[in-house]
Amino acid sequence: MKNIIVAQSGGPTTAINASLVGVVKGALSSGGYDKVFGALYGISGVMKEEFIQLEGLSDEELDRIYTTPSSYLGSCRYKMPDIEEDSSIYEKIFEILNKYEVAAFFYIGGNDSMDTISKLAEYGSSIGSDIRFAGVPKTIDNDLVHIDHTPGYGSAAKFIIASMLEFAHDTSVYKVPTVTIIEIMGRNAGWLTAAAALARNEYSDIPQLIYLPEVPFSTENFLNDVKDVLKTTNNVVIAVSEGLQDENGVYLSATSAAEDKFGHAQLSGVGKILESLVKDELGVKCRSVEINILQRCAAHMASASDLQESELLGEKAVEYAAAGKTGYMTTIIRTSNEPYEYKIETAELDGIANQVKQVPIEWINPSRNDVTSEMIDYVRPLVCGEVQLEYKDGVPVYADISHLTGTV
Amino acid sequence: MKNIIVAQSGGPTTAINASLVGVVKGALSSGGYDKVFGALYGISGVMKEEFIQLEGLSDEELDRIYTTPSSYLGSCRYKMPDIEEDSSIYEKIFEILNKYEVAAFFYIGGNDSMDTISKLAEYGSSIGSDIRFAGVPKTIDNDLVHIDHTPGYGSAAKFIIASMLEFAHDTSVYKVPTVTIIEIMGRNAGWLTAAAALARNEYSDIPQLIYLPEVPFSTENFLNDVKDVLKTTNNVVIAVSEGLQDENGVYLSATSAAEDKFGHAQLSGVGKILESLVKDELGVKCRSVEINILQRCAAHMASASDLQESELLGEKAVEYAAAGKTGYMTTIIRTSNEPYEYKIETAELDGIANQVKQVPIEWINPSRNDVTSEMIDYVRPLVCGEVQLEYKDGVPVYADISHLTGTV
Repeated sequence: MKNIIVAQSGGPTTAINASLVGVVKGALSSGGYDKVFGALYGISGVMKEEFIQLEGLSDEELDRIYTTPSSYLGSCRYKMPDIEEDSSIYEKIFEILNKYEVAAFFYIGGNDSMDTISKLAEYGSSIGSDIRFAGVPKTIDNDLVHIDHTPGYGSAAKFIIASMLEFAHDTSVYKVPTVTIIEIMGRNAGWLTAAAALARNEYSDIPQLIYLPEVPFSTENFLNDVKDVLKTTNNVVIAVSEGLQDENGVYLSATSAAEDKFGHAQLSGVGKILESLVKDELGVKCRSVEINILQRCAAHMASASDLQESELLGEKAVEYAAAGKTGYMTTIIRTSNEPYEYKIETAELDGIANQVKQVPIEWINPSRNDVTSEMIDYVRPLVCGEVQLEYKDGVPVYADISHLTGTV
Repeated sequence: MKNIIVAQSGGPTTAINASLVGVVKGALSSGGYDKVFGALYGISGVMKEEFIQLEGLSDEELDRIYTTPSSYLGSCRYKMPDIEEDSSIYEKIFEILNKYEVAAFFYIGGNDSMDTISKLAEYGSSIGSDIRFAGVPKTIDNDLVHIDHTPGYGSAAKFIIASMLEFAHDTSVYKVPTVTIIEIMGRNAGWLTAAAALARNEYSDIPQLIYLPEVPFSTENFLNDVKDVLKTTNNVVIAVSEGLQDENGVYLSATSAAEDKFGHAQLSGVGKILESLVKDELGVKCRSVEINILQRCAAHMASASDLQESELLGEKAVEYAAAGKTGYMTTIIRTSNEPYEYKIETAELDGIANQVKQVPIEWINPSRNDVTSEMIDYVRPLVCGEVQLEYKDGVPVYADISHLTGTV
């Protein structure tokens, strides 16, 4: 018996289940594996032997999971100790892997998850195990190194772009100067915020201003930028990254705690802070909108190309493992921008966990309030294609996750 | 020459342009009208003679406008003075209507807009004018009287339901007790918040708790409710209306002002307030999400039945005017719930402006933390049907609104 384990980890995305489906299909089509164990709640589910079996899922069920947002298997935020520090966890995990006759382990996740799979592969090598370990990347933040772009990013970007265009329509109706600030996820990298630029079209230049965490944020420059745009239009919409930092590297959102009516401390996001600033300093009507978790779970606006690539990364991960490879992450290499072409290869896991890929400085304009056409060309192919969902009574039909929603 | 004027007013919705298309199509098909003037920025555009002509729009252009969010003609928030108080504005408007040979005036909007059209009709009658005046209703809040439900509500509800289901997936991935509070629009009526109940399905009971502004909010009961739900699940998601009020009728959001790092006052919404409360009083991980303006402009998730009804209300408004009627609003009378059937009739404008239709108390459960099946049955037909948008490079294609986005 040769079985596999697949698990998901880190923050949810719209594409992480497409990779899961890719792993399952890859395992089934390879002919080399028998059972496919899905570990619930990431590596912690492996340690507790919380498995559901996936090899019996029908094509219809797999199609449903493919378009379902968030992690079908649940997730965890568990950091594996260094092997030298505490090898007992590794011993326990390998005992379980052997008990379940696991020949390959696939971990779908972001940089922390790549750290986990890297350590497991390393421990495996050290004890001469022939179990294969592979990482399948995902993160809406698009901040992993060794990959052109990450699964989940395209779908999140597509939702942000569509929303931004809808905001352009929503905010244009009154003939009164107004500023609308849209706060977008991305604590250390501005990829998602930068994508907002793709909402611009022949009749709208919204968002007129874009601020990324890659460059220091200056309140003075910001207010001057807004005043400038207000000279030519009533309706200013601004895309800002949640991770904006001042010239000292301090997050704008870090020091805004205040007490509410119950005497409880409240932390405000960047959007609210800039909203107050515009109101008070410019005396202009201002509203802020935080797109929040919708950008990572709005599967009804998923990018078809994102899901296809995510599935392929999962499938290929199994293919490489079946061929004997271990200790890698499948990755996307872009070979052409127009037409958009890419190939799937493998990347070393080393360094992925400890690096953050930011937007290149040369893709940010000299005034630091917009992105360049290179940035736009980079994102365009990643948001293409729409996913057709089934609806019942007007509501999208997603995969049943009652295995996660049980009692405590 | 017999022309018409159509204008839009009040807050944007996803369905307000379908009503505009209905008015244009109704005017063209009636055979009784020549030009269709679209006044920009509501009644204030009439006073400034800011018109664009709509009778020459192609079917393709009308189809595009039909699915475009927000007000294609722009909007205003202008309250007409009482006629006795200041009749000069009325004289001026009628002068313009006569100049443009206007035989009928259609105003698409919420309760303030119905007040405007009512006053214009009244003034017209008082001077013996034969210009016809009609209101076409819309508001995502669904709080107009004399109508079963308002255009815009179904689409906003559909987006809220889909988002709530996606939140159910997003929030279920960790095996840690967490509370997520979703703040939904509706200052004085809980219709939109109540709709969140339709996200529940065979595998998810999210949102487990729903709080509406129709009944006083008790912090103590709320905390006990949350504690109760946490006994049986890790993952609590709560739908709250932005307009929650305490037993003295004071908005929860009214007194939470605090200073941020720039020394500026910040007002927090209900979601943030309850988030702090849960964190501090229950010591549980908590996040709040404000769906914000997305719920009124997310045309990519519009309800097809909502748009159809909205168009019909516009078309019928013209039909009634052509038949000689004036001083009315077209309205929807529901004749059957299952199968869902309705008819379009007219309602008096009197009283619409000054009344708020709230969720009936008997549709709220005795514990005041949920809605009943009657509420769910009421909403279900209103969110049915999906709208197929055209996409270009992965982005929805909406109608060109460059007539609104020009310089100041």
